Amino acid sequence: MDSLFDRLFPICRSITGEGLRETLNILSGYIPLEHFGVKSDTEVFDWIIPKEWVIRDAILKGPDNKIIADFKINNLHVLNYSDSVDSVIDLEELQQHLHSIPNLPTAIPYVISYYKRRWGFCISHEEREQLKPGKYHAYIDSEFIDGELNFSHAILPGESKREILISTYVCHPSMANNELSGPISAVFLYQRLARKQRRFTYRFVFLPETIGSISYLHRFGEELRQNIYAGLVLTCLGGNRSLSYKMSRRGDSPIDLMWTHLNDTNVFNGQTRIFTPDGGSDERQYCSPGFNLPVGQMARTVYGEYAGYHNSLDTKAEMTIESLYSSVNEMEILIEAVEWDGYYINNSPYGEVKLDKYGLYPDMNAAGVTKQLSSNNLNDNRIQLSRILNILNYSDGEHTLREIASKCNASILDLIPIVKLLLDKELISGPYDERRDIL
Amino acid sequence: MDSLFDRLFPICRSITGEGLRETLNILSGYIPLEHFGVKSDTEVFDWIIPKEWVIRDAILKGPDNKIIADFKINNLHVLNYSDSVDSVIDLEELQQHLHSIPNLPTAIPYVISYYKRRWGFCISHEEREQLKPGKYHAYIDSEFIDGELNFSHAILPGESKREILISTYVCHPSMANNELSGPISAVFLYQRLARKQRRFTYRFVFLPETIGSISYLHRFGEELRQNIYAGLVLTCLGGNRSLSYKMSRRGDSPIDLMWTHLNDTNVFNGQTRIFTPDGGSDERQYCSPGFNLPVGQMARTVYGEYAGYHNSLDTKAEMTIESLYSSVNEMEILIEAVEWDGYYINNSPYGEVKLDKYGLYPDMNAAGVTKQLSSNNLNDNRIQLSRILNILNYSDGEHTLREIASKCNASILDLIPIVKLLLDKELISGPYDERRDIL
Amino acid sequence: MDSLFDRLFPICRSITGEGLRETLNILSGYIPLEHFGVKSDTEVFDWIIPKEWVIRDAILKGPDNKIIADFKINNLHVLNYSDSVDSVIDLEELQQHLHSIPNLPTAIPYVISYYKRRWGFCISHEEREQLKPGKYHAYIDSEFIDGELNFSHAILPGESKREILISTYVCHPSMANNELSGPISAVFLYQRLARKQRRFTYRFVFLPETIGSISYLHRFGEELRQNIYAGLVLTCLGGNRSLSYKMSRRGDSPIDLMWTHLNDTNVFNGQTRIFTPDGGSDERQYCSPGFNLPVGQMARTVYGEYAGYHNSLDTKAEMTIESLYSSVNEMEILIEAVEWDGYYINNSPYGEVKLDKYGLYPDMNAAGVTKQLSSNNLNDNRIQLSRILNILNYSDGEHTLREIASKCNASILDLIPIVKLLLDKELISGPYDERRDIL
Repeated sequence: MDSLFDRLFPICRSITGEGLRETLNILSGYIPLEHFGVKSDTEVFDWIIPKEWVIRDAILKGPDNKIIADFKINNLHVLNYSDSVDSVIDLEELQQHLHSIPNLPTAIPYVISYYKRRWGFCISHEEREQLKPGKYHAYIDSEFIDGELNFSHAILPGESKREILISTYVCHPSMANNELSGPISAVFLYQRLARKQRRFTYRFVFLPETIGSISYLHRFGEELRQNIYAGLVLTCLGGNRSLSYKMSRRGDSPIDLMWTHLNDTNVFNGQTRIFTPDGGSDERQYCSPGFNLPVGQMARTVYGEYAGYHNSLDTKAEMTIESLYSSVNEMEILIEAVEWDGYYINNSPYGEVKLDKYGLYPDMNAAGVTKQLSSNNLNDNRIQLSRILNILNYSDGEHTLREIASKCNASILDLIPIVKLLLDKELISGPYDERRDIL
Repeated sequence: MDSLFDRLFPICRSITGEGLRETLNILSGYIPLEHFGVKSDTEVFDWIIPKEWVIRDAILKGPDNKIIADFKINNLHVLNYSDSVDSVIDLEELQQHLHSIPNLPTAIPYVISYYKRRWGFCISHEEREQLKPGKYHAYIDSEFIDGELNFSHAILPGESKREILISTYVCHPSMANNELSGPISAVFLYQRLARKQRRFTYRFVFLPETIGSISYLHRFGEELRQNIYAGLVLTCLGGNRSLSYKMSRRGDSPIDLMWTHLNDTNVFNGQTRIFTPDGGSDERQYCSPGFNLPVGQMARTVYGEYAGYHNSLDTKAEMTIESLYSSVNEMEILIEAVEWDGYYINNSPYGEVKLDKYGLYPDMNAAGVTKQLSSNNLNDNRIQLSRILNILNYSDGEHTLREIASKCNASILDLIPIVKLLLDKELISGPYDERRDIL
Repeated sequence: MDSLFDRLFPICRSITGEGLRETLNILSGYIPLEHFGVKSDTEVFDWIIPKEWVIRDAILKGPDNKIIADFKINNLHVLNYSDSVDSVIDLEELQQHLHSIPNLPTAIPYVISYYKRRWGFCISHEEREQLKPGKYHAYIDSEFIDGELNFSHAILPGESKREILISTYVCHPSMANNELSGPISAVFLYQRLARKQRRFTYRFVFLPETIGSISYLHRFGEELRQNIYAGLVLTCLGGNRSLSYKMSRRGDSPIDLMWTHLNDTNVFNGQTRIFTPDGGSDERQYCSPGFNLPVGQMARTVYGEYAGYHNSLDTKAEMTIESLYSSVNEMEILIEAVEWDGYYINNSPYGEVKLDKYGLYPDMNAAGVTKQLSSNNLNDNRIQLSRILNILNYSDGEHTLREIASKCNASILDLIPIVKLLLDKELISGPYDERRDIL
């Protein structure tokens, strides 16, 4: 993770352009991506793909020729999607083109202007306050060309065509938590899942935020609508907080329900956010009313809730690679639980199964109240027996394993080994995605 | 309102007769009523229209010829629907025909005997206790004739055939809150609505309580069943309390839900009563099981809960004209909210709408956390933007505007201006009465 | 009850054999049972009927020839379904075949080994600790023969083919609460119901626990599935606690809902247990997923929750005949409530019924607030009137009488006399098992 981070961090990404393509190509070294491009000026639903932004240099010099902002030192210094400029102007006029954050005086802000042409520089407020009257030379060598918007995906096939979508964005320049935490976690989650038997097919998507997911939906929306079982948008997965999940618009996607279950049963100790269409990431597009896909969003240190959000304080030191590792671990658990959830069918549903035939029941029975002190040395493992009986009784095609776990006051993770045992003895079949009749 | 009150107050109304007709005729001067009559002895469902009551005079004189009760001074003195009498009788026998209220010694009670022939006088308990033994002359000049029961309605057409029913009663003699508050409010509410563009058709109904609404349902019940969207029975709308709404039997009529919403969002600070079939006004008939119409009841100082209920203390001074004005204002707000509620459809439902195309979005974006202190002077009106995004996202034909308002922690009234803006820009269409598919 | 108890107590019952048959024959003297047998080795779903157990004698003698356990003195001394033995063995070897309860040193445990052949004796722990090294003579004269498993039922027909099942077990040897409380209560409940007019048909079933109910379902399961309306398994109905009801698996059987209602309205003050498939009695079979019948379980001093559970302390003195009498009374009330519950139809559903035509309404009306102090001596019985109006209003084929009772803040028992009155006047019809349209 660390070396991937270091390769990706310096690149100046935007919603189009060379930085975006370079990022997708680097990711290709870790995950078998298929690449796609949409030509500039193409209509995608209510939007139009903008010209591709070429940024070669940006430098702001003061009256004494001192360099105030240099794109080559920190790519946040240039307004993202800035127009070109080469002018010597007064400080007063320059101020209209400067961006800084008064209450974070050392931070260089990240500012964008994708759809309205303007030029600008971003500097720390500290530095800005020291600017003296005089002539400033603003030089930005950028260009808008007919090019394309790029995105990529990798499909990891499973037993079923039903898909779990993992989507993340790659359009911010040098930021850690709010840019690289998502794609790096996605890459490593992919590698974990690739080594396992999978019930579901997994679709990993890397794209520029908003316009990228709208373009992706324009191309693959119908396919998603048909196949998607659940999905996650990954963003801001670093930091030392607990996981924070934003529910899908439906509020009852398999991942929504599993997230709640795993928190209710203390497997996780996360934060839950309800769905809102204002604020957030690409779940806003996946959950637009024409699609309404069962896609939530997973984060840890949520956008807008930390000092480094959208500025130069968002670094690897603040994000930490360790936290990404935890995020991948926890998402793997969440997905494992979703893989085993679903409906099961008891193959001997009339009366109880005669468990001792299968080695699952004590063959002599004394009173439960006295079992611990009883002189007969039965160790009948009452908890396992109770779980077996609950799973068999509720494997009726109408209760999910998650619901059965709740009836057992257990987490679904506690039941997975027993389900494997009962599947192995052919006492039950499943899991099935949908309800089904027992007969 | 004041002059209408003064014209109507002195009239001796009952469930049939000249007083009822005179009242309906006076109301015709304010609202274009259509009049209907049902002949005496007609069967209306389980009921029979009674003979029409003619009351010409009623006077009770004491041993010293002193007038104890005179119908011409206060029409409450005569038992409503009293038989005629012209007898000189002892005090003891007279007592069987007197009605008074011991715990309200100055009040003349309002007592009725519509369906069992008897005669009687109503006097204050104070007066009654001073009656001395001796001969009393009871004289009531009344008659029961083959006539009719009258009721009237006015239809105010709207864009839709779906109707909102406003029903009130006009059958009590000289009482203010429990008689005139309803018809006067109805008349002025009509005049307000008549000046507006209306989505719904409004049906204003004036009738004698119980037998009148049963007769109205006998004639127009099928029409109501087909067209009614919601309805209100108006009663006891005076006094200094807050509005008090009795839910419809269904409990989920559009007005029930809107009333709850407007209270939950602190637009109103009213009282809510659940539906009961015992006690109340004509909602008991509209909500009888064979009709079960979505009709609630609006009151302010509820029947049975104030000292002047059904007696001579129920006067204009206690009711106040100001309170009727407030009732009309608040019902107008409630109706406005119902007019704008319903299902909307986003006309660009795939991905987000590109709001800046429509002048609805800032064209440069910096971090939300720093927006108030940011050096770029965007005033992006985050609350309006959030409401726009919520309305667009949930304009899916499955969420009502009221539900969208709740998601915004706002009242529906807060969203109406934004809905008008989005309708104007053709970004959404609606409101629709029923759910509909987005595609 | 007392004499029936005394006849049944000494019999050595098991899941098959002469004791079981003798018990069913004794019960035949009280209730017209039809008897059934299933041959040994027959497959019943996932189970096989075991060989019939013949037990003739069991005696354990110590080194000094002293009798330590004698089946003829207490049939709990022999391991139920014990194999035969006739051996002189050391104490050490004998210990492998002894069962006692250290924390209940005076109790002889009840231990079974139906499906695995072994032999054994059950003695008090007190006695066991005094055993000295030496030679012991273990003698059990038992045999496993081709015979049958027996069960019986009695059908009490009602107006409807829909059935209420009452099932209890008769397979434990000399125990009171956890054996005889069920069948004795069932017999006396049968006799009460036999004397009444019945809406439902009642099916009383007596069988060995688990394998018996599985066999019964194998034979009658399809019939039950078609006809059953609700059911109760009776177990452990003695003791001085309040009734304790275990909900059916569905959780919304007519008896589940009525039990909750009668507790909510303080008719009962019972305990409610949720359904679990682990622990319990034959409801585990009736509620197996292939059947999922609406059958709960009624108990008082629940299995596993009292000292005498499955040992020789479970006697008539602890159980008490009085408690069985209470159990029968309370179950009769529960069943009476279920008999009157259901959907009703108002025969005059358009507008209110004109109650005075039927003698159900005061013919003169004065203000409610003053009624208690009013000089007119109406006693209009406002509570009855309110209940009449509620029953008429909600007799719409969509509300059960239990739901109507809740709207009246009453118990269904309070409404039964009024329902009888309204049925008598032909104002309503019902009860119906299912929802129905009013028209």
